[in-house]
Amino acid sequence: MNNKNMKMSEIEKSTFVVSKSIAESNIKTMAEKANRHNLIFRPHFKTHQSEIIGDLFKKHGIHKIAVSNIDMAHQFIRAGFNDIFLAITYNPLQALHLKELSKKCHLTILVESAESLETYNQYASRHVDVMIKTDTGYRRTGINAHDTENIAKIIHQIDSLTLLNFRGFVVHNGHTYHAESKETIRAIHKESLRQLQNLKEVFAAHEPLISIGDTPSVSICENFEGVDEIRPGNFVYYDYMQYQLGACNYEDIAAVVVAPVIAAHPERNEMVLHCGAVHLSKEQLHDANGVHYGEVSEIIDNTHFKRFDPPVFVRRLSQEHGTANLPAGMIKNIPPGKLLAITPTHSCLTANLMKNSTVFRKD
Amino acid sequence: MNNKNMKMSEIEKSTFVVSKSIAESNIKTMAEKANRHNLIFRPHFKTHQSEIIGDLFKKHGIHKIAVSNIDMAHQFIRAGFNDIFLAITYNPLQALHLKELSKKCHLTILVESAESLETYNQYASRHVDVMIKTDTGYRRTGINAHDTENIAKIIHQIDSLTLLNFRGFVVHNGHTYHAESKETIRAIHKESLRQLQNLKEVFAAHEPLISIGDTPSVSICENFEGVDEIRPGNFVYYDYMQYQLGACNYEDIAAVVVAPVIAAHPERNEMVLHCGAVHLSKEQLHDANGVHYGEVSEIIDNTHFKRFDPPVFVRRLSQEHGTANLPAGMIKNIPPGKLLAITPTHSCLTANLMKNSTVFRKD
Repeated sequence: MNNKNMKMSEIEKSTFVVSKSIAESNIKTMAEKANRHNLIFRPHFKTHQSEIIGDLFKKHGIHKIAVSNIDMAHQFIRAGFNDIFLAITYNPLQALHLKELSKKCHLTILVESAESLETYNQYASRHVDVMIKTDTGYRRTGINAHDTENIAKIIHQIDSLTLLNFRGFVVHNGHTYHAESKETIRAIHKESLRQLQNLKEVFAAHEPLISIGDTPSVSICENFEGVDEIRPGNFVYYDYMQYQLGACNYEDIAAVVVAPVIAAHPERNEMVLHCGAVHLSKEQLHDANGVHYGEVSEIIDNTHFKRFDPPVFVRRLSQEHGTANLPAGMIKNIPPGKLLAITPTHSCLTANLMKNSTVFRKD
Repeated sequence: MNNKNMKMSEIEKSTFVVSKSIAESNIKTMAEKANRHNLIFRPHFKTHQSEIIGDLFKKHGIHKIAVSNIDMAHQFIRAGFNDIFLAITYNPLQALHLKELSKKCHLTILVESAESLETYNQYASRHVDVMIKTDTGYRRTGINAHDTENIAKIIHQIDSLTLLNFRGFVVHNGHTYHAESKETIRAIHKESLRQLQNLKEVFAAHEPLISIGDTPSVSICENFEGVDEIRPGNFVYYDYMQYQLGACNYEDIAAVVVAPVIAAHPERNEMVLHCGAVHLSKEQLHDANGVHYGEVSEIIDNTHFKRFDPPVFVRRLSQEHGTANLPAGMIKNIPPGKLLAITPTHSCLTANLMKNSTVFRKD
């Protein structure tokens, strides 16, 4: 990603276009919320993977970050961040790399089994903070928060290893992404806090830090009792999924794929964009008309898009092609070569795919 | 992609591992088939996007290629290919770029409307071959092969523009990817050939070249009557989808994602790999147990993988995590840090995502 500000009229091919001002506004809103609730704000940088967006966070006083792999950790150490949480369960094969990383930043690692820690300890040469991955309902990974016996065993193991420092509990309620209403998100969040509060009490002697992660909960909820840190990532750009969940307004979405129409098929109410799975990703949502991969809007000017009425979605996706449904009468006004804006379903996956064809919009 | 040959024991993180010998064998088989049927073999390079795999094609005498965007065209011109078909419908915004491209190679472009050609002609400075995108049933894009009136109009338009040379018809029967049996694939192929044969007769005066594309048809079928050129891409690596379709044997699959297990959840018969949507892509298939994103195998040595019995699939996928189902008893033998091999659902999308973390396996 270069720091080029581009006019829409300069775009010729499928391009990921980010609004710095909207991203900055999302950062500011979340930073203020964290302040208001006295929370450490440790954004997850896997969403944007961009030093330029990283600079926007710095501007708002944010210096602690989360990343999802070692390469990303090095990328942001080079960009001047020195307090890094490697927010994916520790992979014993990378012990030596973690040792290197721990020399370059204040490193926090994530574990969920006692055994794998020993491999790390063999190589450790500097103190490293350790968080325990805990599960309060998502059932992807992490130790069930009710399993205090297993958790106690891991804390004991951490305490027995000189260079490791038990720091607290991490939870990611990814099931909020599949919630059907704000109420469900609030209920998931509330139940998670209840379980985390219990852990905090059981392990009070260790003064555990409680870190929660998902964008829907931290965007929607106002109760952070017992929470010490938030680690949302997606909020910096938001996307159609977050909008549908009620985690953001449509105008908070900071990134779109701008892509040219390459063919019109009015006989079946469809048009084809050069915008496929290698641009949007195959992350899908469903509505009454089936699967969709992103909402299509018209481009009014550099800062304004206009959603179609009724809305138009990318309904089919192959490697480079996206097919959108649109009444034949409207297709007439959209000749091949016209640029449209596609609001991605999941901005994290889209940003990852389009790292090398990202620009900033000229606001 | 560098040209490093890696042992499995050297891998520490999620890596796309390609077998050059299997890829070369797939190339050889397809090149021989093309020879046998007297077909031009113009492989689609969007699958691998790799100069090293490109060299394997050269070794087997293949110098004509298809690509899906202009950057890829430049990449392979630099790699020594000089007969390039830009196999995506012409985007009028890129007319100037095509002009540049036409100076560097024998360029063939793809159109499906008369209007957009005029924009190209404004900038053209060299002769360029033009293929017409035709649809014989996939209904993604292209002019319906029955619509000879519209096709005649475009050919007339091409003929009227000095620097453009009408060359023939291109079809891509992508619906074979969703076929439920080899018989369906053969039927789709047969019906497509029938429609193309008709086009060939109607436009006999123009001596149109007939170019077909999809890997399932060209792998499975033996009737290429009336066909002049094949443009498969996926066959170089194949993948789980092609195996399921019967387009290849399991041992023809040339690429896997090798990834570490990072957590075990025997209580729900699941293990978690550091292998998510940014590695595999969210391309999904379905079986009796639901959605899956790739099959997991054990790694025996550098050249041998062993499928589980019953088979194990990645069943859930988030950005960096893949969750696979496996009986608790078997999970005991797979500690965190153990590497497993995942046969991707769709190798084109996986290869695209993992361009920067691809290695060749030490055979």
